[in-house]
Amino acid sequence: MIGITLPDGTVKQFESGATPMDVALSISEGFARNVISASFNGTKLETTTPLTTDGSLTLYTWRDDEGKEAFWHSSAHILAQALEQLYPGIKLTIGPAIDTGFYYDVDFGEHTISEKDLPTIEKKMLEIARGKHTFSMRESSKAAALDFYKKQGNQYKVELIENLEDGTITFCDHDTFTDLCRGGHIPNTGIIKAVKLMSVAGAYWRGDENNTQLTRIYGISFPKQKDLKEYLELLEEAKLRDHRKLGKELELFTFSQKVGQGLPLWLPKGTALRERLENFLKKAQKKAGYEMVISPHIAQKELYVTSGHYAKYGEDSFQPIKTPNEGEEFFLKPMNCPHHCEMYKHKPWSYKDLPKRFAEFGTVYRYEQSGELHGLTRVRGFTQDDAHIFCTPDHLDQEFMNVIDLVLYVFGSLGFADFTAQVSLRDPEKPEKYIGSEENWEKAESAILNAAKAKGLNYIVETGEAAFYGPKLDFMVKDALGRSWQLGTIQVDYTLPERFDLTYKGSDNELHRPIMIHRAPFGSMERFVAILLEHTGGNFPLWLMPEQVSILSLSEKYENYAEKVLNSLENDEIRALVDNRNETIGKKIREAEMNKFPYMLIVGEQEEKDGTVSVRKHSEGDIGTMTVSEFSELINTEIKKNTVDFNV
Amino acid sequence: MIGITLPDGTVKQFESGATPMDVALSISEGFARNVISASFNGTKLETTTPLTTDGSLTLYTWRDDEGKEAFWHSSAHILAQALEQLYPGIKLTIGPAIDTGFYYDVDFGEHTISEKDLPTIEKKMLEIARGKHTFSMRESSKAAALDFYKKQGNQYKVELIENLEDGTITFCDHDTFTDLCRGGHIPNTGIIKAVKLMSVAGAYWRGDENNTQLTRIYGISFPKQKDLKEYLELLEEAKLRDHRKLGKELELFTFSQKVGQGLPLWLPKGTALRERLENFLKKAQKKAGYEMVISPHIAQKELYVTSGHYAKYGEDSFQPIKTPNEGEEFFLKPMNCPHHCEMYKHKPWSYKDLPKRFAEFGTVYRYEQSGELHGLTRVRGFTQDDAHIFCTPDHLDQEFMNVIDLVLYVFGSLGFADFTAQVSLRDPEKPEKYIGSEENWEKAESAILNAAKAKGLNYIVETGEAAFYGPKLDFMVKDALGRSWQLGTIQVDYTLPERFDLTYKGSDNELHRPIMIHRAPFGSMERFVAILLEHTGGNFPLWLMPEQVSILSLSEKYENYAEKVLNSLENDEIRALVDNRNETIGKKIREAEMNKFPYMLIVGEQEEKDGTVSVRKHSEGDIGTMTVSEFSELINTEIKKNTVDFNV
Repeated sequence: MIGITLPDGTVKQFESGATPMDVALSISEGFARNVISASFNGTKLETTTPLTTDGSLTLYTWRDDEGKEAFWHSSAHILAQALEQLYPGIKLTIGPAIDTGFYYDVDFGEHTISEKDLPTIEKKMLEIARGKHTFSMRESSKAAALDFYKKQGNQYKVELIENLEDGTITFCDHDTFTDLCRGGHIPNTGIIKAVKLMSVAGAYWRGDENNTQLTRIYGISFPKQKDLKEYLELLEEAKLRDHRKLGKELELFTFSQKVGQGLPLWLPKGTALRERLENFLKKAQKKAGYEMVISPHIAQKELYVTSGHYAKYGEDSFQPIKTPNEGEEFFLKPMNCPHHCEMYKHKPWSYKDLPKRFAEFGTVYRYEQSGELHGLTRVRGFTQDDAHIFCTPDHLDQEFMNVIDLVLYVFGSLGFADFTAQVSLRDPEKPEKYIGSEENWEKAESAILNAAKAKGLNYIVETGEAAFYGPKLDFMVKDALGRSWQLGTIQVDYTLPERFDLTYKGSDNELHRPIMIHRAPFGSMERFVAILLEHTGGNFPLWLMPEQVSILSLSEKYENYAEKVLNSLENDEIRALVDNRNETIGKKIREAEMNKFPYMLIVGEQEEKDGTVSVRKHSEGDIGTMTVSEFSELINTEIKKNTVDFNV
Repeated sequence: MIGITLPDGTVKQFESGATPMDVALSISEGFARNVISASFNGTKLETTTPLTTDGSLTLYTWRDDEGKEAFWHSSAHILAQALEQLYPGIKLTIGPAIDTGFYYDVDFGEHTISEKDLPTIEKKMLEIARGKHTFSMRESSKAAALDFYKKQGNQYKVELIENLEDGTITFCDHDTFTDLCRGGHIPNTGIIKAVKLMSVAGAYWRGDENNTQLTRIYGISFPKQKDLKEYLELLEEAKLRDHRKLGKELELFTFSQKVGQGLPLWLPKGTALRERLENFLKKAQKKAGYEMVISPHIAQKELYVTSGHYAKYGEDSFQPIKTPNEGEEFFLKPMNCPHHCEMYKHKPWSYKDLPKRFAEFGTVYRYEQSGELHGLTRVRGFTQDDAHIFCTPDHLDQEFMNVIDLVLYVFGSLGFADFTAQVSLRDPEKPEKYIGSEENWEKAESAILNAAKAKGLNYIVETGEAAFYGPKLDFMVKDALGRSWQLGTIQVDYTLPERFDLTYKGSDNELHRPIMIHRAPFGSMERFVAILLEHTGGNFPLWLMPEQVSILSLSEKYENYAEKVLNSLENDEIRALVDNRNETIGKKIREAEMNKFPYMLIVGEQEEKDGTVSVRKHSEGDIGTMTVSEFSELINTEIKKNTVDFNV
């Protein structure tokens, strides 16, 4: 008999030779039907592998990342089998599972293949899947394995095997197909109910452009047809919401070859949007006792030698800026903290002056390889909504809670309702990895945990994930398409105050080191606007819209009345503009819809006579005729309803 | 007889041999008394030099820069004479007039001299001056001149003479003193009534640190004792208003060795001040149809090759920023216009879309040698209140007038009442110096002149002072101490639209080049704040003050009432803070005065009971007790009175 420990800690006894699927069945038949893969003592294995020792077993379903991985890994085998059947003589290379499905890189030899062939391959794959074949792992000597592929003339697999350590090589067989494989498959091919091959691309063998070019086929598969349908709809929606596409359509930002890749140019409408976000945060920060500062975008090398960034990033960054004849070296600033430390030093402080909270919308520059750049989410220059709080250890609890309040206020006001938090603590078994005293670490960690508890956050604790200079709290938000984004970081830092020799005079009249808190609720303005675009599809919360209302005149005759309505709205602090072009009202409405105006007011003869406006709401249509002041009240009520309060 | 033409064009006849002073006397004895120096046919000469040909004569008084130069040049002779009498055996080198007086560089040999010796030298100078000695120029051969100084053992004068062209050398004699000299003296030493030697400094012979170190004595002199007194008072006031001193005292900005010279760090109070200025201009710009944009602080070399800046400034600027492995080269942006041109290009425009007005508070970086840096007026990084207007030739007149309105609004709102303008036009005789068509130049020049006239500006026209790319209008303002500063530039530019191939579709359906107007009413935020500090001594206009009111509690007992007053003021959009420290009211008032709070409100038992505040005005003292709402009205009325309207 063997003792199998389950994730909840219970230990069950089985006869030696029982498989993971047997264990699943012992729990319930329904559960067993959903089991996709398993791991034993931390190592993945087949659901059909006999267990012969005591150990811990984890069983995975479609809900687990490990379950999806086994599902897609198994699907890659089926793709390869289908390809071999359809294109005899091709040479298989590698075919891993990825975050969103799987791919296989293939040398098609004399065959050519294009996206129009994909439906045929999908059909063949489903045909194989329906055979409910099981996967079985088989061991082989390295020599036999090499022999197997040499006979096929597959130099790729030969190269792969040659690079493996000497010893046993494993193959996986299912149906008529065999592949070199480390294992971890689904119980049988029958659970694959839906397959979609997404695209055909070129890929160099081993990613090296000096090697043969292979053909890569990307695919994804699901246990239910419905899951595939939802996934494709989500993809379609994500394409529509791609911030690069929306940014262009809404004229928010642009890029220029001459200015350079990854360096966004914010157009008027984007700038207005960004300013609105910045002013929103500035207002909350002012209430919370922050003070704005401004620092230059370059600094002498010495600043980064002191901060330690030079030693860490010097060579991988934008290179130094030299001066014509004075031997100076400047760097573009990759972060604002060293500058803020120097500002802190401009005069001596007493504990009574603290906390000092320096905030800056600071534009920083970090070198990214051009291939890594992506719209506004991966850029070479971006503006952080940065702040550094300099405080005493006694302030930590309250400051941390205040920062959480601010972050929650930001999320609430921008419609991010679904988020979780992660508290990263030090690894107590590796104290040598961290700097700062035991006492300070304890204070900082308990400050974060207390604050997270007090604020009722839904958080997980990750031990060993703290930065070497202090513990931190990160927020992950889910957007409207269910995608996760990291937004909002709060970090405690004991290093920089040490490196910059920052001090304050305590109540004991002695000099002490302040603690620094780094925080950025948005993260960066660029990335945040990108996420907000993808989250809202450009239909920003009403309060944020650069233009909330478009006043559409039925004809140029009503220009005066349209202007009168505009003035009245502006007096009520509503942002509006007049579309008085000589176009049909239908065209004006269509364009206003496309430009995402939340409200359209149509004004003509009747409206002018009655002092009213005919109101259309974006994507909802006509909502009736009302007086201008009734409309002002309506819009201001909606704004109030959709924003949260920020009280400190 | 000779014909002497005077500056007003009249020609007077004199006997040959008449001197400039004779001409002065022929005008009036009173005028002659004020004449200090003269020039004949554009060359300066002594007032005692006989005139023997027809020609144009200009006579200078103390009001003319040329008069001051002769006055101070003559004073330098007297300084040298006094030094020779007091310190026998010294060697004189050079002693020119400068903008604010004169200096003499002397090799004192075994003598030592310090600032405490200056009064004795001043006394000796005035004693010499009272002798009413006249200056007479004397010609000598080069050999005789060399002989004269070789005998004295003065290697400096020998070197000077050796470096002169062969031919006649001139000396100037007065009293017992002789110096090598080119001429241009006052009628006699007696008109020097006041002398002040300012300082003693070291100076290398010929400015080369490998040469002997000499002693430089700086001085200034005046025709009236009263002038000296006023000058010294002004100097004292300027010292108190030095923006570097005030910037430190008011905690507006700081510098850090580690960040680097010439790179200001804006502290919270300075940032608040700057933001207020920026918001003030943003508001006016919005009203005037500008749109804010944001561009990065770097760009690829290619952008500046296109704009032409690379060819012109490349080597004297901050050197390029390289990337680790992609061979790219970026430059810190020295101006915003190329970025704005690329923004303009993001889509095609029709004449109906123009003018487009892109505004940005854009931080630019320009290399200045460290020796040239000075506080906020000469820095390496600064933020321009920049904007570029893209328009058609038909728009030029109106756009120019609108920009002038905006500049006048800025000056008016910030208390710069005394200003003049300069219109810089092309030199019609050198058309090869300029680019752009004759027709465009005419349009642009007449647009500027018409606008200057229409706006009633006090302006002068400088022909030949236009930039090669277009004519311009500059404003010079006088500050409270009578010093002139250049503020506010408007330039027309035909080059960049050409270089960037900017176009718009005209009403003729053809593509045309837009015209660009560059303009910056403040110039740069750094320089403007510096000038504003020196102009106001830190007592900014009430509307601009970061904190307008300090509420001083008589004791901590009145904290609640003080907070209540604060809330009430904040509701009326008045910026205030509470000083509730446990200090005497006298100390609180003194500190509030020093921190330039325009108003102080004292609150104690009586005020709390009556719902009132006791009001003190900065540097005026107690102005009575009133209710909080009466005070709000008082301050808001004052703000309204002191700001000008901006109507477009």
